[in-house]
Amino acid sequence: MSRTVIEPQQDRSRATRERLLESAVTLLSETGWNNTTVTTVATHAGVSRGAAQHHFPTRDDLFTAAIEHMTVARVNEAKATLAAHGDGPVPVREVLESIVGLYTGPLFRAALQVWNAAAVDPVVREHVIPLEQVVAREAFRLASTLLKINRDNPRLRAIVAATLDLGRGLGLANILTDDAGRRTWVLDAWCVELESIIAAESPTP
Amino acid sequence: MSRTVIEPQQDRSRATRERLLESAVTLLSETGWNNTTVTTVATHAGVSRGAAQHHFPTRDDLFTAAIEHMTVARVNEAKATLAAHGDGPVPVREVLESIVGLYTGPLFRAALQVWNAAAVDPVVREHVIPLEQVVAREAFRLASTLLKINRDNPRLRAIVAATLDLGRGLGLANILTDDAGRRTWVLDAWCVELESIIAAESPTP
Repeated sequence: MSRTVIEPQQDRSRATRERLLESAVTLLSETGWNNTTVTTVATHAGVSRGAAQHHFPTRDDLFTAAIEHMTVARVNEAKATLAAHGDGPVPVREVLESIVGLYTGPLFRAALQVWNAAAVDPVVREHVIPLEQVVAREAFRLASTLLKINRDNPRLRAIVAATLDLGRGLGLANILTDDAGRRTWVLDAWCVELESIIAAESPTP
Repeated sequence: MSRTVIEPQQDRSRATRERLLESAVTLLSETGWNNTTVTTVATHAGVSRGAAQHHFPTRDDLFTAAIEHMTVARVNEAKATLAAHGDGPVPVREVLESIVGLYTGPLFRAALQVWNAAAVDPVVREHVIPLEQVVAREAFRLASTLLKINRDNPRLRAIVAATLDLGRGLGLANILTDDAGRRTWVLDAWCVELESIIAAESPTP
């Protein structure tokens, strides 16, 4: 008997925790690191302050969990993008759009708030660095898989890495204003260059 | 007589103001937006709190002035880089290093703190946007002048813009860890592509 009682409770508890973490990421992206607290997150999630503090006794506990949650979400975003494209050939311009998508949504805005906090706080930094490496690896895997490049080719490896840095720079440029028009112009131009580099490195049949 | 008395006072006042603004930018880059206050800036500048408040009655006054000061400093950084290279030909790899320099120093770190605050605060954002446009124009002028490209050539215009976005992305990647090794690898590769694009667009003699 006790098992059937305990399990739904655990499920509810897990769902509450999940809701709090979702709210933490949303508030990070919309209101910033310093305006996000256990109280504002509880209110946003529709959870009592007491219940929120049961899960996250301190702001540090909440942020540590939120950063991990956000990392998983960003990796999943990359994996979902990959899965959505299937196995067929993907136009380079579409791949570029997918890459830039990783750097222009709410998750990137939330991550930027975390990086900025990490830039001036060594404790946050030590926690964030290994997680960022996971995201970077996944972004590289996404880009190189969709572009179907030979990862042993040093020119192509480096140019895919540069494309991800370009995407990050375009994402940052989009933080203050809607930069979509300029971004389209830059990506259209880069697409032509990238296609020609990939073609030049492809073995002729 | 009064003139000679007033002028040194004005000079002193101007020097104090300048010192406070320098300290504000340093503290922004080292301790972040939220840990920078009139009091911490006064202490860092070796100025009494009263004197600091005479110049900047509120934190908003200080930040408005500091953001403008930082914009001028970033534009001057670009101009100084340009002047340092003189009129002779500059190797593309060296130009790339100069561009990335704009995105890896303390001024970029301070600017990133300001952007992050602006991302969640419309008042800061409205103030920052026109200033950022000045910096962006100056960065483009620096890059296109050093690369000696024809600015009427649409392919070259776009690739210079992409190079600046790449630089911004590399700067952001450098916030959490020293990314110099990976950055060298990416820039070496980008340099080869950029040189070949510039060569392809150059009128044959």
